[in-house]
Amino acid sequence: MSVVTDTTRNGVDTEKMFATLDLIKTQPELAKFQFRATNRWIDGAHNRSTIKGFYAAGGEDTTRSEEFQCDAGEPAILLGTDTGPNPAEYLLHALAACLTTSIVYVAAARKVELTSVESTLTGEMDVRGALGVDDEPRNGFERIGVSFRVTGNAPEEKLHEVVERAQKRSAVYDMVTNGVPVAVEVTTD
Amino acid sequence: MSVVTDTTRNGVDTEKMFATLDLIKTQPELAKFQFRATNRWIDGAHNRSTIKGFYAAGGEDTTRSEEFQCDAGEPAILLGTDTGPNPAEYLLHALAACLTTSIVYVAAARKVELTSVESTLTGEMDVRGALGVDDEPRNGFERIGVSFRVTGNAPEEKLHEVVERAQKRSAVYDMVTNGVPVAVEVTTD
Repeated sequence: MSVVTDTTRNGVDTEKMFATLDLIKTQPELAKFQFRATNRWIDGAHNRSTIKGFYAAGGEDTTRSEEFQCDAGEPAILLGTDTGPNPAEYLLHALAACLTTSIVYVAAARKVELTSVESTLTGEMDVRGALGVDDEPRNGFERIGVSFRVTGNAPEEKLHEVVERAQKRSAVYDMVTNGVPVAVEVTTD
Repeated sequence: MSVVTDTTRNGVDTEKMFATLDLIKTQPELAKFQFRATNRWIDGAHNRSTIKGFYAAGGEDTTRSEEFQCDAGEPAILLGTDTGPNPAEYLLHALAACLTTSIVYVAAARKVELTSVESTLTGEMDVRGALGVDDEPRNGFERIGVSFRVTGNAPEEKLHEVVERAQKRSAVYDMVTNGVPVAVEVTTD
């Protein structure tokens, strides 16, 4: 249950938001977060991630009462049995969710009341790369298209500014467009 | 229900896998896929993606009988109400799922029977970037750590080779490490 106060806009408590920003400005060490996911193979293309704990603001955050579970899979044409979205579709979802939340938070900070935020994301892939048939196509999407429809109590220009600012601040947009160093370790016992 | 034949290894129908690879080699135009996600803002940090249709092998794939729904959220410290994993956690899940499925498929192709594949992923983030408090830290994870434990009926060296090959072919690993061009369009009516 979120507590609705007169400082709440778009479902975001802006008083708490500005207090958080002020706190982090004076104590930047509180801004160090670590997020995690634990995954377990089930069968074939079916695997499941469990997500709960994370480190935030100087300590382990224990406010989450239950863990989240996400099941991944592949459709039949990619040799799975549709036990969940496939990993590349989950990446599109991560990007959509991050841009959307960024839009909602930026709008709240700028006193824009949104009425709707909808998006469709598409990713083009030549699966010869990931299937190892040809070295020329890359494994991942060649490009991603994001189409947003955003409505609210602000002029068109201001709504566009909100989306532009959200793009500049979205964590997943940054990662998907710029890449992140990934270190993989393996044990076999 | 997957049909188990004597060509099934790790839950993957290897006969179908090799037939698919052969088909794509002779008709590379069948390798053009498009995946999609549609997202809708609900309230605050809560939004939901719907995932069903995709384009594959020369036409729209209609084999999926139901759509998948993924709810995103943020924990209290990031001004949400824990309506789901946050977008950055979903990105970790996408990466874990893709590497895991790649390991399972590569092992199946190389006649390695796996007994378990488990992983823990961590992502370090200085949230000053995404919150717009400071321009210096990037918005996304500074780095991602992936720790795999893989067991099966093969020598340690072969299991390591399977993971290395999977890394080389994983679609999401490619995207997360190298980045993807993203084009954003916005309409406001």
